Amino acid sequence: MDFTIRAATLEDCKDISRMILELAEYEKVSDHVKITQRDLEQDGFSKNPFFHGIIAEVPEQHRSKDGHTKVGYSLYFYTYSSWKGRAVYMEDLYVMPEYRGKGIGKALMSKVAQLGMAAGCNQLNFAVLDWNKASLDFYLSQGCFDVTADMGYHCMRCEGAALENLAQGDS
Amino acid sequence: MDFTIRAATLEDCKDISRMILELAEYEKVSDHVKITQRDLEQDGFSKNPFFHGIIAEVPEQHRSKDGHTKVGYSLYFYTYSSWKGRAVYMEDLYVMPEYRGKGIGKALMSKVAQLGMAAGCNQLNFAVLDWNKASLDFYLSQGCFDVTADMGYHCMRCEGAALENLAQGDS
Repeated sequence: MDFTIRAATLEDCKDISRMILELAEYEKVSDHVKITQRDLEQDGFSKNPFFHGIIAEVPEQHRSKDGHTKVGYSLYFYTYSSWKGRAVYMEDLYVMPEYRGKGIGKALMSKVAQLGMAAGCNQLNFAVLDWNKASLDFYLSQGCFDVTADMGYHCMRCEGAALENLAQGDS
Repeated sequence: MDFTIRAATLEDCKDISRMILELAEYEKVSDHVKITQRDLEQDGFSKNPFFHGIIAEVPEQHRSKDGHTKVGYSLYFYTYSSWKGRAVYMEDLYVMPEYRGKGIGKALMSKVAQLGMAAGCNQLNFAVLDWNKASLDFYLSQGCFDVTADMGYHCMRCEGAALENLAQGDS
C-alpha cells in the first residue's frame, strides 16, 4: 500500500488528538489523556514549539472504514545527554490497527531517526511499557537496547501538589 | 552556608564540564562522557539551545579545597507528554561532595520545578539509577514517584550503527 510520511501541520492536530486517544486506549490508559486538539495547536505550532510531529497518510482510495486518511503519527522533540550530547526523543509512535504490518511504523521511526541525525543527534530515546512485548521485540530487532534493563535507569516523575510544593521550596 | 542559584551562562561551561565528569565518576561511568566544554557552549548557548542550565555558587570565602566557587548545577530542557502536555526534564542534578547536606541540591531542583511551572509545565521528569538508593529516597521524600516501578516504563535507546541503519531505512 502506498503511504507518505510528512511533517505535521496545524491542520493535523484534530487527527493527532484522535490518534493519541486511540494509542492510550491500546495502552489501557485513556483516562490519563488530558490533552486536547487546542493544546496540541498551541504547544506544537507556535513560536518555540514543545514538540514536532510527522504524519503517515494514505491515498483516498485506501481510507479507513471510518474515513480517515491520516493513519499514523509520531511526536518527537530534541533533548540532551550530558554524556553524549544532542538527542532526539520519540514521545509517540502509532499506526492505526488496520494499517499495521505494512512498514508504516518502521517508516515513521526511520524518519524521526533521520531528522534527529540531521540535527546532529547521537541518540534516539523513547519509552516502552514492559507488558508491550510486541513493541519491545520490534524495537530490539531494530538494534535498540533497553536502558532500564541494561543500566538500571528508572524514570521518575513529580507532578500535581508535589510539583507545586517543590517549586515553592517546601519540604 | 550562603549560596546562590542562578541561570548558567557561556562562561560556566568549563565548570559544568568539570562537574559532569565528577557526576559520571560518582555514577561509575566516567568513560561514557564524550561531551566537552566546547560542545556545551555550542549546544546550550546558541540560538535554539538544546538545554538550559542553572548553577549553585558559594562566596569566595567558602570556595572548595580545589578553589571552586561553582559547586553544583542542573541541566534541564522542555519536553512534552502527549497525555499531559508541557513537561520539564531534569537531565542532571549535582552538588560537589563537600557541599552536600546544606540544601543546595533541593534548591537546584526547586528552581527547575519553578522554571518549569512558569513555562506551563505539568510534570517534572528525570531518571535515577536503581542502585542509587540515597538519591531515590530523596526524590521519593519530595513526593516524586517511580514511573518504571509503578507503571512499567522502560527507557529505550538507539545509537551508533543501529541509529544510522534506522535512519537509512535498512532493517
